[in-house]
Amino acid sequence: MTVRFGLLGAGRIGKVHAKAVSGDPDAVLVAVADAFAGAAEALAGQYGCSVRSIEEIEAADDIDAVVICTPTDTHADLIERFSRAGKAIFCEKPVDLDVERVKACIAVVEETGAKLMVGFNRRFDPHFQAVRRAIDDGRIGAVEMVTITSRDPGAPPVDYISRSGGIFRDMTIHDFDMARFLLGEEIVRVAATAAVLVDPAIGEAGDYDSVSVLLQTASGRQAIISNSRRATYGYDQRIEIHGEKGMVLAENQRPVSIEIANGDGYTRPPLHDFFMTRYTEAYANEIAAFIAAIEKGAPISPTGADGLAALILADAALTSVKTGAVVELS
Amino acid sequence: MTVRFGLLGAGRIGKVHAKAVSGDPDAVLVAVADAFAGAAEALAGQYGCSVRSIEEIEAADDIDAVVICTPTDTHADLIERFSRAGKAIFCEKPVDLDVERVKACIAVVEETGAKLMVGFNRRFDPHFQAVRRAIDDGRIGAVEMVTITSRDPGAPPVDYISRSGGIFRDMTIHDFDMARFLLGEEIVRVAATAAVLVDPAIGEAGDYDSVSVLLQTASGRQAIISNSRRATYGYDQRIEIHGEKGMVLAENQRPVSIEIANGDGYTRPPLHDFFMTRYTEAYANEIAAFIAAIEKGAPISPTGADGLAALILADAALTSVKTGAVVELS
Amino acid sequence: MTVRFGLLGAGRIGKVHAKAVSGDPDAVLVAVADAFAGAAEALAGQYGCSVRSIEEIEAADDIDAVVICTPTDTHADLIERFSRAGKAIFCEKPVDLDVERVKACIAVVEETGAKLMVGFNRRFDPHFQAVRRAIDDGRIGAVEMVTITSRDPGAPPVDYISRSGGIFRDMTIHDFDMARFLLGEEIVRVAATAAVLVDPAIGEAGDYDSVSVLLQTASGRQAIISNSRRATYGYDQRIEIHGEKGMVLAENQRPVSIEIANGDGYTRPPLHDFFMTRYTEAYANEIAAFIAAIEKGAPISPTGADGLAALILADAALTSVKTGAVVELS
Amino acid sequence: MTVRFGLLGAGRIGKVHAKAVSGDPDAVLVAVADAFAGAAEALAGQYGCSVRSIEEIEAADDIDAVVICTPTDTHADLIERFSRAGKAIFCEKPVDLDVERVKACIAVVEETGAKLMVGFNRRFDPHFQAVRRAIDDGRIGAVEMVTITSRDPGAPPVDYISRSGGIFRDMTIHDFDMARFLLGEEIVRVAATAAVLVDPAIGEAGDYDSVSVLLQTASGRQAIISNSRRATYGYDQRIEIHGEKGMVLAENQRPVSIEIANGDGYTRPPLHDFFMTRYTEAYANEIAAFIAAIEKGAPISPTGADGLAALILADAALTSVKTGAVVELS
Repeated sequence: MTVRFGLLGAGRIGKVHAKAVSGDPDAVLVAVADAFAGAAEALAGQYGCSVRSIEEIEAADDIDAVVICTPTDTHADLIERFSRAGKAIFCEKPVDLDVERVKACIAVVEETGAKLMVGFNRRFDPHFQAVRRAIDDGRIGAVEMVTITSRDPGAPPVDYISRSGGIFRDMTIHDFDMARFLLGEEIVRVAATAAVLVDPAIGEAGDYDSVSVLLQTASGRQAIISNSRRATYGYDQRIEIHGEKGMVLAENQRPVSIEIANGDGYTRPPLHDFFMTRYTEAYANEIAAFIAAIEKGAPISPTGADGLAALILADAALTSVKTGAVVELS
Repeated sequence: MTVRFGLLGAGRIGKVHAKAVSGDPDAVLVAVADAFAGAAEALAGQYGCSVRSIEEIEAADDIDAVVICTPTDTHADLIERFSRAGKAIFCEKPVDLDVERVKACIAVVEETGAKLMVGFNRRFDPHFQAVRRAIDDGRIGAVEMVTITSRDPGAPPVDYISRSGGIFRDMTIHDFDMARFLLGEEIVRVAATAAVLVDPAIGEAGDYDSVSVLLQTASGRQAIISNSRRATYGYDQRIEIHGEKGMVLAENQRPVSIEIANGDGYTRPPLHDFFMTRYTEAYANEIAAFIAAIEKGAPISPTGADGLAALILADAALTSVKTGAVVELS
Repeated sequence: MTVRFGLLGAGRIGKVHAKAVSGDPDAVLVAVADAFAGAAEALAGQYGCSVRSIEEIEAADDIDAVVICTPTDTHADLIERFSRAGKAIFCEKPVDLDVERVKACIAVVEETGAKLMVGFNRRFDPHFQAVRRAIDDGRIGAVEMVTITSRDPGAPPVDYISRSGGIFRDMTIHDFDMARFLLGEEIVRVAATAAVLVDPAIGEAGDYDSVSVLLQTASGRQAIISNSRRATYGYDQRIEIHGEKGMVLAENQRPVSIEIANGDGYTRPPLHDFFMTRYTEAYANEIAAFIAAIEKGAPISPTGADGLAALILADAALTSVKTGAVVELS
Repeated sequence: MTVRFGLLGAGRIGKVHAKAVSGDPDAVLVAVADAFAGAAEALAGQYGCSVRSIEEIEAADDIDAVVICTPTDTHADLIERFSRAGKAIFCEKPVDLDVERVKACIAVVEETGAKLMVGFNRRFDPHFQAVRRAIDDGRIGAVEMVTITSRDPGAPPVDYISRSGGIFRDMTIHDFDMARFLLGEEIVRVAATAAVLVDPAIGEAGDYDSVSVLLQTASGRQAIISNSRRATYGYDQRIEIHGEKGMVLAENQRPVSIEIANGDGYTRPPLHDFFMTRYTEAYANEIAAFIAAIEKGAPISPTGADGLAALILADAALTSVKTGAVVELS
């Protein structure tokens, strides 16, 4: 079976997914839609597919699945529409910035029996997958403590930040998902601190740029997250899991692994400076997993429920900062 | 000038300090006292000094300074006695497990003008000192976020734990001091989670074995601490400081740095398995710093106030765990 | 301009180059030839190109360049034929196993003014290129000493070894080229030792499996090469260059960079186990460089002369082993 | 039993050994001799021992063993004298710069049945010992190929070089001994290249500053050595052993193991800048091994024969450079 795709949104991340779909022997990119005709046409030209409207893709008989890469505030509506149209759906995170809206959207997905995968790409990074596999293989015994370090090379424009839902929903949300992916138990307690240390303009926009989060599960497993919108040395993405029998960690990635030594010491180059180059393989792997799940009729993961769970943690962290309380989740 | 020492307590850590004092060209070990005569005599024999009672050392004209390595519950009393006797005092941490008792003791030290150094040995570790120096030299700009990982190879006997004051006052206290040493600002908020994951007997003794702590200063600088009484791979002692211009970290230490590669991969040996071998240089350096300060009449650091500050953080962390609140410090 | 390609040989390495040509926006794969019709048809089907005979490709007006991936003993003849046919030529190393045959072939290339690139793929590895760039940027000053470690995960079949020209011409030849690439001066002295330590069958086939080579340039720069047909920990490919101002090295590559710690120590996974996965980017980069050079009419490197120079070093190393002499090159 | 020592030579290395002897619970430093009375007196004052002449030490009833740290050209004579005097002898390398003189000296040692240990301190480095132990434990199977990198932070004064016997006898000799220590078989072939790349004055003094050596044993095991009198990044001392089942290596050592990351990359500090700080533990361990061997009446290693074997390799390397031949040893 070949999975036939429609792509909604031909922007930066849309291009990444178009390449992944086209490069997969079990999939074909049939059509692309974008509010900007030029963007859709350019992508269609490159991959030899047609430009269609969202409505046309919705109604198309020759399309099995869609990849949603449109702006965040359209995600929930599109998921609902394509659920009803019987298409399999891959949607970039987040489903929505509002928990109630996400719940309503997931209800439609469940009611229609649609297949929905949410784009937590980091679960598909080969290094993080190797960490997960080491845990599953019993290499470190029961998980006890997780440490996630996630720092961006630089802050996005304040304009973006204003629409982002804030650092916990925009940036930390990946780490909340990673914590859930690694802890193997639901989180019941959240404490967080937050500050503006990088750029006062971020504070003026009502957001933070430096946050620390502490998570705990019912059995007492713990995770700590350290986030900053600044990392002069590149895109800092590390995870470490401490268990009863040992520890496993994923190291940072850099474009070239050379080392220069002189009187100043031994220097290795900075890390990747962008999430797209850091997570190139992860993006390709997640689309491949989506295609494979559709082909085999296998369960899809991460689901809308995973998207919701991460959002609830983001809200709890923000509440902890605002109220000075440790937030308990039911 | 040669600083003439009396040693109070000839146990494990007493021996370490006896060696440091004897090996320092500017100091001499004059007398040793211990409740167990045999222990005192053995040490006296090894270093060619006399065995005396605490009272004799207190009254001695030929002793300038004492090192207090007796059980914790005697520390505050001895500090007060030797402050009044005009001796310079090096005391193993903690001054006491009770904040009020520590305050009263410090009042006596101040009243008498005595010199008191508290044994937070990690400040004198050459690697951590190099980290501190990198910060002081402006290598990473203003400090923003600190991560401290501190895991013991194994839990102490439950009997010890019962008398220890709990993990926050016994183990995390070193990390609280290190956080203060690195943050460069006083901490105003504390949140903590704690669990028993290693040994149920520790829980039955009313303590925890796995804790995570989140600290924040008034300007928003943050520190996270991860502690476990278990680390199968050795004594895990790492610090990492993220600043506006960069990051500095101290790596773990291992007795030998070889690597063996085969079909299973590349393997380096475990870390040090004991704090005494991990911090050998730190113990020697702290006594040398104490001696140097006495000789030069220079200020001593860390002081009793540093010991008090760390204890207050430990109490706050425990309160956070017990109450589920983020604790604000005045 | 789009460079139109014919591919000669549809085997393992032919597939790699077909993918690189097809993926390059400035090139198109027009035709493929292979003695086994099935292999050619499979590749043609995958990339939508035609199957043709070598003669047809030679005579084709719609083909600008060929990639030669046929057996070694056909290389020199094909280079000569396609030089005369006015095609640009990329040929897998080696041009031939016989120095005189290579010289004759290069004479034809020069006479016809053909463009010839020889497939020393390692020059295009991003890590080795970064090393070369560090040298060019003056980071280590004048080059003094080069160390090349190159070990295969396992020996090829003895049948292959018999036809390979021996380890110096088959395996070390890559390291001879790398030494030339890094030393920046021609080599004038060669000493080598060789032994059979891995598999006696290799010795019975008249070859060696473990060799060490020492090279020197006229000004005294030195390189050492360590080769083995065995490396239990994966494909070991390291270079290190020591210069007057410092040192630069390229580390080994592994598929995933995680680390697991337990009572046995800290273990990272083995290296890549195959040259095709280790040098994936290098293969793509060298074809891209070939295409770019054709498009821009720029000089091509490495040339046939580079292939000849490496072969002369291989012969010298073998002579050194056989005669027990340090071989001087004119 | 307490081993009673006389120390011959109170210079830089003499002080190191005096400290090691004094710090060993099974040894006592009884007397020190030096041509410069002041040097002897200073050392005697520090360790509370007497100053004596060499003749007095030779005749003394209260001295069991001597440590010879006098100038190289006195070593062989002193070894012979103290062999005849019935003392156990630890002598800094080399025994002599002339092979025949060394042979004659060893003949006296054997004839008198004296115990002689030669100061190849690197065999006692804890990291190199761990490598040796890994081999002995079968972790890498049979040894196949050894790589030794040994580079000095800077060249010694030309005046020293003139008296040193040349780089092979002065510097590489440690690596020849290490190669023998690791290969586990006697070396039968030597090829070397040498050049003056660091300082023309070294060439004018008739010596080289950059050398590469290739060694082979009868069964085909190989070692390569890379030496330079220059290393801007510190004292570079690495060994790597490749065997049939795997590989083991010893990493370089640095005084502090921190890492600083910023826009320029990740930088670790330079290595030790001096052999005395790099090999502090090795010096203490070798004296402890000497004392232990005397106490237990156990065989001493490395012996005078080991010193001779390394010197023969040094001479062979020089011959290879001078004659352009691969030198075969019987």
